[in-house]
Amino acid sequence: MGSTFGHIFRITTFGESHGGGVGVVIDGCPPKLEITPEEIQKDLDRRKPGQSKITTPRKETDTCEIISGVFQGKTTGTPIAILVRNKDARSQDYDEISQKYRPSHADATYDAKYGIRNWQGGGRSSARETIGRVAAGVIAKKILQQTAGVEIVAYVKRIKDLEATVDPNTVTLEQVESNIVRCPDAQSAEKMIELIDSIRQEKDSLGGVVECVARNVPKGLGDPVFDKLEAELAKAIMSLPATKGFEIGSGFAGTLLTGSQHNDEFYTDDDGNIRTATNRSGGIQGGISNGENIIMKAAFKPTATIGKEQRTVSKAGEETTLAAKGRHDPCVLPRAVPMVEAMVALVLCDRLLCQRAQCG
Amino acid sequence: MGSTFGHIFRITTFGESHGGGVGVVIDGCPPKLEITPEEIQKDLDRRKPGQSKITTPRKETDTCEIISGVFQGKTTGTPIAILVRNKDARSQDYDEISQKYRPSHADATYDAKYGIRNWQGGGRSSARETIGRVAAGVIAKKILQQTAGVEIVAYVKRIKDLEATVDPNTVTLEQVESNIVRCPDAQSAEKMIELIDSIRQEKDSLGGVVECVARNVPKGLGDPVFDKLEAELAKAIMSLPATKGFEIGSGFAGTLLTGSQHNDEFYTDDDGNIRTATNRSGGIQGGISNGENIIMKAAFKPTATIGKEQRTVSKAGEETTLAAKGRHDPCVLPRAVPMVEAMVALVLCDRLLCQRAQCG
Amino acid sequence: MGSTFGHIFRITTFGESHGGGVGVVIDGCPPKLEITPEEIQKDLDRRKPGQSKITTPRKETDTCEIISGVFQGKTTGTPIAILVRNKDARSQDYDEISQKYRPSHADATYDAKYGIRNWQGGGRSSARETIGRVAAGVIAKKILQQTAGVEIVAYVKRIKDLEATVDPNTVTLEQVESNIVRCPDAQSAEKMIELIDSIRQEKDSLGGVVECVARNVPKGLGDPVFDKLEAELAKAIMSLPATKGFEIGSGFAGTLLTGSQHNDEFYTDDDGNIRTATNRSGGIQGGISNGENIIMKAAFKPTATIGKEQRTVSKAGEETTLAAKGRHDPCVLPRAVPMVEAMVALVLCDRLLCQRAQCG
Amino acid sequence: MGSTFGHIFRITTFGESHGGGVGVVIDGCPPKLEITPEEIQKDLDRRKPGQSKITTPRKETDTCEIISGVFQGKTTGTPIAILVRNKDARSQDYDEISQKYRPSHADATYDAKYGIRNWQGGGRSSARETIGRVAAGVIAKKILQQTAGVEIVAYVKRIKDLEATVDPNTVTLEQVESNIVRCPDAQSAEKMIELIDSIRQEKDSLGGVVECVARNVPKGLGDPVFDKLEAELAKAIMSLPATKGFEIGSGFAGTLLTGSQHNDEFYTDDDGNIRTATNRSGGIQGGISNGENIIMKAAFKPTATIGKEQRTVSKAGEETTLAAKGRHDPCVLPRAVPMVEAMVALVLCDRLLCQRAQCG
Repeated sequence: MGSTFGHIFRITTFGESHGGGVGVVIDGCPPKLEITPEEIQKDLDRRKPGQSKITTPRKETDTCEIISGVFQGKTTGTPIAILVRNKDARSQDYDEISQKYRPSHADATYDAKYGIRNWQGGGRSSARETIGRVAAGVIAKKILQQTAGVEIVAYVKRIKDLEATVDPNTVTLEQVESNIVRCPDAQSAEKMIELIDSIRQEKDSLGGVVECVARNVPKGLGDPVFDKLEAELAKAIMSLPATKGFEIGSGFAGTLLTGSQHNDEFYTDDDGNIRTATNRSGGIQGGISNGENIIMKAAFKPTATIGKEQRTVSKAGEETTLAAKGRHDPCVLPRAVPMVEAMVALVLCDRLLCQRAQCG
Repeated sequence: MGSTFGHIFRITTFGESHGGGVGVVIDGCPPKLEITPEEIQKDLDRRKPGQSKITTPRKETDTCEIISGVFQGKTTGTPIAILVRNKDARSQDYDEISQKYRPSHADATYDAKYGIRNWQGGGRSSARETIGRVAAGVIAKKILQQTAGVEIVAYVKRIKDLEATVDPNTVTLEQVESNIVRCPDAQSAEKMIELIDSIRQEKDSLGGVVECVARNVPKGLGDPVFDKLEAELAKAIMSLPATKGFEIGSGFAGTLLTGSQHNDEFYTDDDGNIRTATNRSGGIQGGISNGENIIMKAAFKPTATIGKEQRTVSKAGEETTLAAKGRHDPCVLPRAVPMVEAMVALVLCDRLLCQRAQCG
Repeated sequence: MGSTFGHIFRITTFGESHGGGVGVVIDGCPPKLEITPEEIQKDLDRRKPGQSKITTPRKETDTCEIISGVFQGKTTGTPIAILVRNKDARSQDYDEISQKYRPSHADATYDAKYGIRNWQGGGRSSARETIGRVAAGVIAKKILQQTAGVEIVAYVKRIKDLEATVDPNTVTLEQVESNIVRCPDAQSAEKMIELIDSIRQEKDSLGGVVECVARNVPKGLGDPVFDKLEAELAKAIMSLPATKGFEIGSGFAGTLLTGSQHNDEFYTDDDGNIRTATNRSGGIQGGISNGENIIMKAAFKPTATIGKEQRTVSKAGEETTLAAKGRHDPCVLPRAVPMVEAMVALVLCDRLLCQRAQCG
Repeated sequence: MGSTFGHIFRITTFGESHGGGVGVVIDGCPPKLEITPEEIQKDLDRRKPGQSKITTPRKETDTCEIISGVFQGKTTGTPIAILVRNKDARSQDYDEISQKYRPSHADATYDAKYGIRNWQGGGRSSARETIGRVAAGVIAKKILQQTAGVEIVAYVKRIKDLEATVDPNTVTLEQVESNIVRCPDAQSAEKMIELIDSIRQEKDSLGGVVECVARNVPKGLGDPVFDKLEAELAKAIMSLPATKGFEIGSGFAGTLLTGSQHNDEFYTDDDGNIRTATNRSGGIQGGISNGENIIMKAAFKPTATIGKEQRTVSKAGEETTLAAKGRHDPCVLPRAVPMVEAMVALVLCDRLLCQRAQCG
């Protein structure tokens, strides 16, 4: 339970860190969309381990195979299954973890829930699970782009207390991809890379904030009262590993303003479109997109698995210490950027189809 | 679409601000639970308008009727329908709003989505819709309480920049209910009430933060990878009107720490239970409850509907101004407290039943 | 659980035979559809008890109230709640049934499942529950009619061994409604009425077959591989009380033919449409509507509740006898006709919206 | 859409006749169940093509690989992905079918629905799609067996007009598997095999009836009012390729009896269990299992794809003829037997977990 997401454009992911592989089945994809493994690979490469000195050194090509649902280069409307084999699995690194719980990791809770746990590489709780999400996200992005010109750009906004200056209304994918930390503010990026590199050497880890903007989202997406657009986005983002917080528009800072300061006044633009003069709403009002840029933030905690020695307990409850071996990211944010984009795309694409269903 | 929440303990709400009434159908409720209208009424009274000088003066008794699903005082396992009639509806107050869009409200987006809008009292986008959630939440709380001794307490943590000092591990419902702003820190409460009262006179509004704790939640609740407990809670909270942000445990502040500072080290307590020495995780690790207190925060923006004059446009796109008449809360937080509790209870109850289903 | 039906056009029913009432919440209804209580009432009147000498004498007006989701005569896209109050409930008739299980009725299984049972009038297992379905079906029919000119006509095809001659391609609602047994073959109808009336006097009951045709259904509805159109129809029909079998097109008789006899050969009609020369497929091929008339049959068993004395056991397991008092139909088929129409409409309307969602 | 089945024990299938392969993802499986690829293979072998002279000669080993969700021989509670590669695909056989519609097959409706069709071997509409169902069914059967001793046995009850004599209360898997037509009545089996073999030589095809019994099903499964057990079973069965009808218990024949003849009288057996003296209900009353054997029938039409020449049209609507080349079964029933078992197991297992969820 819990591995399916979406109402019409619906994905089901599977797979663990080690073992046969990871992947996704996408059901409900509109037919006749052109899609190639190469397009999917592009985002998988942005997510894959070993891509730079500030990510985990695990070496995976993460090459995807489209098993079904695409015929002569086009989607057929039937389930699209995508598989990525695991290659560079070193189970021996995890012997100790099979017996000891990593602090703030999912080891103990998986045992508590299921009474059994695939401890190799973190099993299902490994961020490797997000491969299926990213693959599906590529297709969702393409549908959104073709249907309505939607652009989704995520980027690292903050690492620890190093905050970047970025204009969500104009930032481009190229700017994001111009450096290994995926922060479009070049100056901040440099400092962030240094900081992550130094914490890596200390066998410690860092967290931060990813910001994401979706531009050209049509008005009318989101389904009150429970499937409001910000509610779906919050769920999508908070289902990513290591997330601790979510904000839409003005977020927590917005609570410091009065209503008259916070409200986005309406005006009519030169093309006769009803617009808002400001965008503290973050592109959503009453759970429904209003045509302005959708802007949100996600808080990612520092990576739980660290090389530093920590106090913990064994499966049997005996107190002990652990200095994690395995390979892990000193900071998940650079690799989280394509994950955030994917989740946002999955929500928007699904709600686009929902809107078409109910309102024509 | 979008008015159903939950997988097994599943609620569907209905109703608008004006018209026949509002309510909820609860499907999947365990049988043989004793429940009375009086128990439900208690939380409805905490939510209802007109309860104090800092809430909207609309006068509604919000008296609930249990239409079905309860027989001789006990749930029968069949759908429980609960209806609350609308009484104090003054449609004439909304004539102007039928033509003009309230800034940062749902008027414009409902029109964009559906091409039609019940403008009386905000229609479906009115917070009156949450009556069904609160009623269902009472039943969810009782199941959680009886099954596992779960206690859920929400309270106002901050109004604008007035932040209260509250210990989530010990705070009680009685403390919360001891004042009209529902802030268990008496000193802060007094200042908050003053502040809200003064903003009310200025025809402006305020926002803030509600914190919620769930104690005695069994280990093992939450269903990775998409229905992680924090993801479900985030969706639940962000589906409430006026929410702009969600945090679990350390939240955004947690991103300022390193992994070694942030991780919750494990130990074994005197009863042999595996516990964490700190609780930056907020009671959830890897999407699954770990037995510690679940602690979360919700940001509520200042009420969008204000008496102050604002610039806006008419339905036809003509620029105009609006000073909202209607009756509205100068600050939604005191009444949001039982709503937050209800949403948290709905998530936990549903996931308790999901856990029983899959893992026995 | 189990009281919600449909994926996009989704209904949730509630209510028991006695108590506050019965009803339905319809979520996902397209906005701006004109609908009045009078239109809904028309089908409720076809379903209601006491309408003729061959139905139960229970007197209910079954007057419906639209609580929400309709504004100024049009649907708003928000949940439509419809409530029918129970009026003529005689709980005293059911004292004996509170202790004894009616053979082939749901009394014993509800007790086995839930450990509690509302025994008044059959509680949730009463056919009174179908009021919500019929009300929602009216709206579904109207959407289908307006969107694609779909016509759905059900009728009594057989009572016991009295089989009517009816052409599904031309039969009209008027013909069906021209007699109290709802069989458009006047000669057969007369015999059926006599037969039912005589079995009623014997305190026994009868079953039979309802046939249903849906005409002008667009090509392309139905979602393989599990939500094939015939699968959804089968579930819809088999969820009605007293059903024992379902057939689409040639049904069980089709198994007696060879492939070359059974296959529907294709041809192109004068308008250039691809059609089938015969219709043993019943309008569905590979789980998807093919534009031909959709024709199906439902077997209804003889009413389980009868006045004749039968052997049974008490709740405590003691052997005893029972001659049911209460009021019940000697044959459910005349009243089942609008129920079948409603379920077929609900499936087709939902799948129409699903098709629009995925394939545009 | 439409490739997911089940509420808690939920499967999603993928794959087409030709291409990368077919398979299934099972989410919600209880943890700690021992399962091996060999166990799954056993039923896949019963389903696979080329197993006898009366099935299609296509040669596939249908070897399954468990990609995820099983660790050290046990389920982990996370998604179980199972993949079967396609091997013996001869796309050239299908060139003609890429342009011409096979009568009573899904070719035309897939084109009408999706505007595109994978015509190789029937694509998604091929019965090859059922591999994922059968694989998942093995796991469902094992859970049912271990939890409650449930036995599910399906068998060929009739081919064309050759009807077998079988006692559903005692029939065993061994009897079913004792011949290639899977009819436990040896005498009838022999005649059936002859009949199928002769129709094969005529390039024609046959249909018939599969009967299925589920024994030792606990009381209480099934969720009124829409997810009644017979409704779920009907949907499950009618989602299999080539099905035209479904019956539970007395089925259509039951409509010929009066209530007093049809009702199953209750008695208390020597162990104090409430039982029914007869079983016309087929083990289900009011949508809920009553502890008696669940007995149902499925009508399968004669295979649509035949070697005989038939009139049809091309994609462009031009009238033409077609004598199908490809490889196909002269009668699907022998291979449908494990499919029916699988679908019944999937429904029962899912509803077992649903019951545990709601009623404990």
